[in-house]
Amino acid sequence: MYTDRIRYRPLLGKVVSPEEAAGLIRDGMTVGMSGFTRAGDAKVVPLALARRARREPLRITLMTGASVGDDVDSTLTRAGVIARRLPFQSDPALREAINRGEVMFVDQHLSETVEQLRSRQLPPIDVAVIEAVAITEEGGIIPTTSVGNSASFAILADRVIVEINLAQPPELEGIHDIYIPTRRPYREPIPIVRPEDRIGLPYIPVEPAKIAAVVISEKQDSTSTIHAPDEATAAIAGHLVDFFQHEVRHGRMGESLMPLQAGIGTVANATLHGFLDSPFHDLVMYSEVLQDAVFELLDEGRMRFASASSITLSPGWYATVIGRIGRYKERLVLRPQEISNHPEVVRRLGVIAINAALEADIYGNVNSTHVNGSFMMNGIGGSGDFARNAFLSIFVTRSTAKGGALSRIVPMVTHVDQTEHDVDVIVTEQGLADLRGLAPRERAPQIIEHCAHPAYRDLLREYFQEALRRGGHTPHVLEEALGWHVRAMATGSMLPATGSPVAGGRPAAGGA
Amino acid sequence: MYTDRIRYRPLLGKVVSPEEAAGLIRDGMTVGMSGFTRAGDAKVVPLALARRARREPLRITLMTGASVGDDVDSTLTRAGVIARRLPFQSDPALREAINRGEVMFVDQHLSETVEQLRSRQLPPIDVAVIEAVAITEEGGIIPTTSVGNSASFAILADRVIVEINLAQPPELEGIHDIYIPTRRPYREPIPIVRPEDRIGLPYIPVEPAKIAAVVISEKQDSTSTIHAPDEATAAIAGHLVDFFQHEVRHGRMGESLMPLQAGIGTVANATLHGFLDSPFHDLVMYSEVLQDAVFELLDEGRMRFASASSITLSPGWYATVIGRIGRYKERLVLRPQEISNHPEVVRRLGVIAINAALEADIYGNVNSTHVNGSFMMNGIGGSGDFARNAFLSIFVTRSTAKGGALSRIVPMVTHVDQTEHDVDVIVTEQGLADLRGLAPRERAPQIIEHCAHPAYRDLLREYFQEALRRGGHTPHVLEEALGWHVRAMATGSMLPATGSPVAGGRPAAGGA
Repeated sequence: MYTDRIRYRPLLGKVVSPEEAAGLIRDGMTVGMSGFTRAGDAKVVPLALARRARREPLRITLMTGASVGDDVDSTLTRAGVIARRLPFQSDPALREAINRGEVMFVDQHLSETVEQLRSRQLPPIDVAVIEAVAITEEGGIIPTTSVGNSASFAILADRVIVEINLAQPPELEGIHDIYIPTRRPYREPIPIVRPEDRIGLPYIPVEPAKIAAVVISEKQDSTSTIHAPDEATAAIAGHLVDFFQHEVRHGRMGESLMPLQAGIGTVANATLHGFLDSPFHDLVMYSEVLQDAVFELLDEGRMRFASASSITLSPGWYATVIGRIGRYKERLVLRPQEISNHPEVVRRLGVIAINAALEADIYGNVNSTHVNGSFMMNGIGGSGDFARNAFLSIFVTRSTAKGGALSRIVPMVTHVDQTEHDVDVIVTEQGLADLRGLAPRERAPQIIEHCAHPAYRDLLREYFQEALRRGGHTPHVLEEALGWHVRAMATGSMLPATGSPVAGGRPAAGGA
Repeated sequence: MYTDRIRYRPLLGKVVSPEEAAGLIRDGMTVGMSGFTRAGDAKVVPLALARRARREPLRITLMTGASVGDDVDSTLTRAGVIARRLPFQSDPALREAINRGEVMFVDQHLSETVEQLRSRQLPPIDVAVIEAVAITEEGGIIPTTSVGNSASFAILADRVIVEINLAQPPELEGIHDIYIPTRRPYREPIPIVRPEDRIGLPYIPVEPAKIAAVVISEKQDSTSTIHAPDEATAAIAGHLVDFFQHEVRHGRMGESLMPLQAGIGTVANATLHGFLDSPFHDLVMYSEVLQDAVFELLDEGRMRFASASSITLSPGWYATVIGRIGRYKERLVLRPQEISNHPEVVRRLGVIAINAALEADIYGNVNSTHVNGSFMMNGIGGSGDFARNAFLSIFVTRSTAKGGALSRIVPMVTHVDQTEHDVDVIVTEQGLADLRGLAPRERAPQIIEHCAHPAYRDLLREYFQEALRRGGHTPHVLEEALGWHVRAMATGSMLPATGSPVAGGRPAAGGA
């Protein structure tokens, strides 16, 4: 029964089928849907939309919080519904369409999308589709496992469709903290001074008259595909625990460290998992997503509080955690992603940001998004929101990929998402490079000797030595800087068949 | 007479010669000196230090606010005093030493240096050397034409040397607003909600016992070398005025716009100068440096208030403005650069950031610092503090350099300081590209057709077309992406002798 989930009674009359609700969305519209790291996404209206697109022309601009569940982006992509997509995605079918130039993807810092919407620098939202556990007596929308951009989408949209999801437990009510910054230039400080501060409402306040349809669903969130820690990820976690112990010994932080942020994925999860075997206690998170390891740390009593914008779990943890979510309510808060990722709060709290790199170069520039400089993976997500304003900005990656054919440490990255100015520490399973206070010429040996895989160290040393002969603050051999990637595109491997990657074509190699 | 400038009487006994004061600085020390964009720098102690370095080994880590005056960095560099330098410089002799690898330069966001000092992530300051107009009755230090990092340097240093500069008018007293954020993780919001808010003290509070020496100087600030607006800079200003009028018409801002930030240099100054012939009024600045044009706008009554960290003027304006600085006191405030550039405040106020690009690529990535990816010009300065958090992030550059031999719009920049995620608008004398809400494949035609010089448009179009054949979200021809720079290093020009820049070496050029 869903009637107890719709506590504002007039809306009971607006319960319709997904097809009817999807009928509110027309060709050319801009649609804002809930969903952040697969959690709390709209699940049935988008699929009805895709079915309708088989019969009539239907192309929309689709905005979400971040990535959505298994079917949504791929089904919409295959149906040709998505003309433009922002600010993040992680779907294989959509990714291919983006890289073919069929979908215009706008890759944004996750805190910025609603800021641009509010200031009318992006087209206005025609329809918002928001998953909810319930609608309050006043018509307020209670989100589910993510907040993402849902609050601002609903507030700014002309019309709102609510998907009441009966598979999401009513105990989620009270876990959210919905705060919308006041309009600029009359904005007040965001009053969060500790990760646990609640500053807003437990629901999204919307004019009930704007809620044009309510749809009932019973589909669970897609779960994440976190792999269990392996030797490499355990080594990365170990290097980080050692590093933090070093920082504690030098008086730069206490044993509760500083508020932690960790990106999504196996490596980030393994890093937090590593804290189970550490001397650190009373940890707090100020992050965008909470993965399995956060609940391990909460259950073990090692973490005191966690603030984020979504909960994304692997199948095993999903069953456990979502079933007893009420127990975590005093130690969890879910916020709009504008707030979970807000530069103001990140800088104020002094967050330790731990994010994954696709590749890093010998001077500390990080590529988070593009394979070979051209092909989009997922998007920058929140990494830039956190890294620039962090107390400590850490990037983690395995040292190689494709069985060693690709080095994740390269002479020059093919795309820069995090500049050298924003990267304090790089960690691979090989070791950790602490780049704080170092000039580029000092960073290169740290990164090569501590982070690169041994199979690539000589090649990197050779590149760096040749670059030093050319001179400069950040020495490069410009005609060879992207040569490793060119070779990998041609042969599948960054390792040269014979000789060195800087052999050939270099003028005056032995010169001054 | 200087005695009325030293109102804390016990310090009268600490007045010494520059040589004696410089004696407090010993080999291997970390020294923090005042100075931001040539203004308010320590002027006599550093030169005494350079003289001493002729007689004995003396190498230091030198931190300042930003660039310092004409003699300081070059004299110290020639004397071999600077081992390490941060966070910014613009001196020709120092730049060469950095590029030869003789000085380790750490190029930082200007808001971050004291944050890293405070959290002990940089080595502690042994001695601070601060230019002042006066010392208050309580021993507080009143800065001169800049605040920069002086306040935190003085507060964090073991010992402080004050240079009382009699050439700086006592009327500067009251213009400064010294606020130091509280320590993380217990930090409170920075309480600025309007550019004119004063939140701190008019002097730097230090324990008088820490003031180890006072030196008297009478040297004026170095003036800036702002060139008068020419046809190109006037065209850039015209494009921006047109764009802002368009934004006003579309209801995105009022005729007072939003608080303005403008970087240092001729182009930025000319842009503000262009506002004299515009319908905009009651303008406000929240910037890091105030140049000539700001005082034109204040004098004409077109600007209401200006907040920054320094005042840097050309010779003509210097004589006029500094002589009557008291008249501006109600409409000016100088803050620590941590506050003038603080991401929290920049985001809250909704600043329009206008900064200069060294080069931009067809997808909107900007290089602010490195010639040919290797050779440092000045440093990123405050551009990253502002651009990422701005309401609107604008980059300006002439479309060519070296008489047309170099294009400032290139296929791929050789170094990225501002990522595609942080660049909303690019302007050259050719026109303006509005990149908001566009995917990379949409940005390229905008930048090529509106910003590139006509002499380079065909070459850029050809590169982009070939890149499109290779595919991707941000299509590149990786083996040719840096080819323009490689050619310019070899021939002095990015223009090919014959044929196109993507001729030669491209596989399957006509393929799918």
